[in-house]
Amino acid sequence: MKSLILTHHPEEKLQFLDIPKPVPAAGQVLVKLKAAALNRRDQWIREGKYPNIQFDTILGSDGAGIVEAIGEGVAGDLLGKEVIINPNVNWGEDPKVQSKAYSIIGMPNNGTFAEYITVDADKVFAKPQHLDWAEAAALPLGGLTAFRAVFTHGQISEGKNVLISGVGGGVAQFAFLFAIAVKAKVFVTSGDQEKIDTCLNLGAKAGFNYKTEGWQKEALRSSGGFDVVIDSAGGNQINDFIKMAKPAGKIVFYGATNGMPQNLDMFRLFWNQITLQGSTMGNDLEFADMVDFVNLYKIKPIIDSVRPFSEAISAFDEMKKGGAFGKLVLLLD
Amino acid sequence: MKSLILTHHPEEKLQFLDIPKPVPAAGQVLVKLKAAALNRRDQWIREGKYPNIQFDTILGSDGAGIVEAIGEGVAGDLLGKEVIINPNVNWGEDPKVQSKAYSIIGMPNNGTFAEYITVDADKVFAKPQHLDWAEAAALPLGGLTAFRAVFTHGQISEGKNVLISGVGGGVAQFAFLFAIAVKAKVFVTSGDQEKIDTCLNLGAKAGFNYKTEGWQKEALRSSGGFDVVIDSAGGNQINDFIKMAKPAGKIVFYGATNGMPQNLDMFRLFWNQITLQGSTMGNDLEFADMVDFVNLYKIKPIIDSVRPFSEAISAFDEMKKGGAFGKLVLLLD
Repeated sequence: MKSLILTHHPEEKLQFLDIPKPVPAAGQVLVKLKAAALNRRDQWIREGKYPNIQFDTILGSDGAGIVEAIGEGVAGDLLGKEVIINPNVNWGEDPKVQSKAYSIIGMPNNGTFAEYITVDADKVFAKPQHLDWAEAAALPLGGLTAFRAVFTHGQISEGKNVLISGVGGGVAQFAFLFAIAVKAKVFVTSGDQEKIDTCLNLGAKAGFNYKTEGWQKEALRSSGGFDVVIDSAGGNQINDFIKMAKPAGKIVFYGATNGMPQNLDMFRLFWNQITLQGSTMGNDLEFADMVDFVNLYKIKPIIDSVRPFSEAISAFDEMKKGGAFGKLVLLLD
Repeated sequence: MKSLILTHHPEEKLQFLDIPKPVPAAGQVLVKLKAAALNRRDQWIREGKYPNIQFDTILGSDGAGIVEAIGEGVAGDLLGKEVIINPNVNWGEDPKVQSKAYSIIGMPNNGTFAEYITVDADKVFAKPQHLDWAEAAALPLGGLTAFRAVFTHGQISEGKNVLISGVGGGVAQFAFLFAIAVKAKVFVTSGDQEKIDTCLNLGAKAGFNYKTEGWQKEALRSSGGFDVVIDSAGGNQINDFIKMAKPAGKIVFYGATNGMPQNLDMFRLFWNQITLQGSTMGNDLEFADMVDFVNLYKIKPIIDSVRPFSEAISAFDEMKKGGAFGKLVLLLD
């Protein structure tokens, strides 16, 4: 089968290789992939900027397809089912945090950038019927990570004031869509007015360009302060968020692309009883809940572009450039 | 009545002055104080290191005494009751966080360093019978602040691994006593071996001198990681606590005497799903719960020393010096 594999190639680490189609072991299913989607993680791995890089792995954490074969002990009615894949591997026993054995498909286990994948049977979920293949493939990892940040940690609900920073991000867009769906008052930041405009059309109360000096004051003035901030940038901006948070507010972050802040306003944090909450991915129950939520609210992922699998490398290049708003999707077949 | 008042005096801001005994307004009680206790805040105010300093105020947030008179509308059975005083003023409607009008007695409202005080009738609680006057007066503010940090935020319970940093602090000692009472596995830090030894005698699993290089590794090794860290120092040590916390662990802090950290390990925070939780004082319901808890578990505050009210200034000087372990108590009468 055709696969996009992380190799030692000196010029381009990602190479299309033809390798044997995998066979589902006991308890597994073989999924013929119809679509797959990129995450920033994939490009970071390509650049060697991710911990514990394992070569000779098929990348890709997001995928949707059709169950074509089943291993021993798997219920036969899964055969032929249209599914999306929960990317979790070995979350473990504690719903609050992943085990040390945790990973996601796409390294070290083989991922979705291939014609086929085998995963444990309990990791496939019926594809939401309101989504086409590209939309379904766009959902899993971003949706899962956002669901945990927005609901498990952020406790976002109707009427809450919410700031989604860097809304162009792959997870941030889901956080935005989920918060809008439950009728929170959602504000966004981006460095790109077009992305802000898209969010305003989708129901955002206001958007702020973080390249504009003084946006923080404007955000505080127009919102009256935030109950929850959802962030993945970190850096010194964390202290802005602390100032913009309402008393007893929460700042939930699932990344730190801007690195560590040079200080931390602990005085405001403790006096205002603010919570700084780290978050990443989500457990298997959250994945199931996220799919139910997406079905109930008919959430449609924002898609930047869809291209054939053979042009996957150009999608990685776009991810690196960073201008996209919405998921970069690859169609198999 | 004899009162210790914050004045503009050029040499010593604290002056004993004789002022008229207050009269309870409608809904208030007049308490004849039997004992009062110092908090760090009092010394900070003396040094001008506290926000919104108001002169001509009686300091003191902790006190216990006997209800000697009642205002209009107050139930007569309070007369003659032995009580401790909830220091809260105007917490407000939201149990999660104090209102903007919030303060505690001892500035701007008159406090407990006087022969009498008037407070709202719902702010007096029956003195726990297992406590003498000095112990009862030692309890309110430290007990309240610790109760919120340990239980409301920290969710500390039997078997949890807990680190109490700077256990010599006025609030930290209560956090220690409360966590021990519910059978958590409690570890402590201090710069003073004597304080550590006291805690070991009271049931601490281990204690670490934070002046000893490498204590962090030893703490991590011997504990296996902490479910909850209770801190009021802040500073760069926050990043040590992040390393020492178990995955999904919590760091609850109600102060930042060491100031702001120079960075914040956001990567470990989000990957390990750690919570950094600010906390301060506590609401009126927490005060009531704290008193019930102290009665149920027969908690006895640690007392450093008891002296007559007339020697109050020397207690402030000791607070400044910082060597005490336990509350500095003043006896009225």
